[in-house]
Amino acid sequence: MKSILSVLVENRAGVLSRIAGLFARRGFNIDSLAVGATDDPSVSRMTIIVDGDERTMEQVFKQLNKQIDVIKVKTLEASASTRRELALIKVNITNQTRSQIIDVAKIMKADIVDLSHTTLTIEIADRPERVDLLLSLLASYGIVELVRTGMVAMQKGSEAIAIAVAKPD
Amino acid sequence: MKSILSVLVENRAGVLSRIAGLFARRGFNIDSLAVGATDDPSVSRMTIIVDGDERTMEQVFKQLNKQIDVIKVKTLEASASTRRELALIKVNITNQTRSQIIDVAKIMKADIVDLSHTTLTIEIADRPERVDLLLSLLASYGIVELVRTGMVAMQKGSEAIAIAVAKPD
Repeated sequence: MKSILSVLVENRAGVLSRIAGLFARRGFNIDSLAVGATDDPSVSRMTIIVDGDERTMEQVFKQLNKQIDVIKVKTLEASASTRRELALIKVNITNQTRSQIIDVAKIMKADIVDLSHTTLTIEIADRPERVDLLLSLLASYGIVELVRTGMVAMQKGSEAIAIAVAKPD
Repeated sequence: MKSILSVLVENRAGVLSRIAGLFARRGFNIDSLAVGATDDPSVSRMTIIVDGDERTMEQVFKQLNKQIDVIKVKTLEASASTRRELALIKVNITNQTRSQIIDVAKIMKADIVDLSHTTLTIEIADRPERVDLLLSLLASYGIVELVRTGMVAMQKGSEAIAIAVAKPD
């Protein structure tokens, strides 16, 4: 079972190292990790995808909550969340395959962001399983390079995992 | 000066902890970090944005290359790279402001991915400075929640930072 953890942490030196260390020491397997800024410069948000059973997840949750750098932890339900990942995919082209690849990108609502004589670079921002689908559609052409961000997620509806809500002017 | 490091690492337990520890011990400041899968399940790619002068960057580069988990490190030039970040932004709406916010999203080529009575969630996949611009355009409406992936980058043209190039069928 894969779980999505949205973790607000203090943005200070060594936080990532301590959180990653916690996972490593306990043998929890991180599937993907994204660390990004929030609207508060003193706070970062980590989105961590962990593979494990319910008991493992409870442990992870408790351990994270004990960390002094951790401000807030929440487990997100996949079905109640908007999940997204961004990928850049550099794929081999020939004069014969170029238009085929452009068609695939178009159908998958992905953008062409770079072109050379022998390669084409596609950007996709979508659910992780859609990124996987695009990769499988492109595999036979030869994927030269792949960069993925790791998944981020936000719960649907008006609720938020945030420290303070910025008020409109 | 902000530098972009694209690092291929062995996908095994404790790697993230060791790399993050290296940065923490030496006081290198990580601005953003994205860890994602590659087309080889045994290999992950980290995109690390580090703030520091040229001498610091040389040190970081050397230290990374010494790590047993690190397969390859490359510094990317911002001008010679496609740089992207994905953000989900949940913003307050009223009957009066909703259409204004939808207009802003449209102009910025961002998508509306969720709607409630009081909030609207926008997805943007763009250069980090464009994500910042959108955030500043939305700030006055009240940003309820923000999730960013951290930046990923890929060098323009046909060259790749990869272990092996998958061949077309």
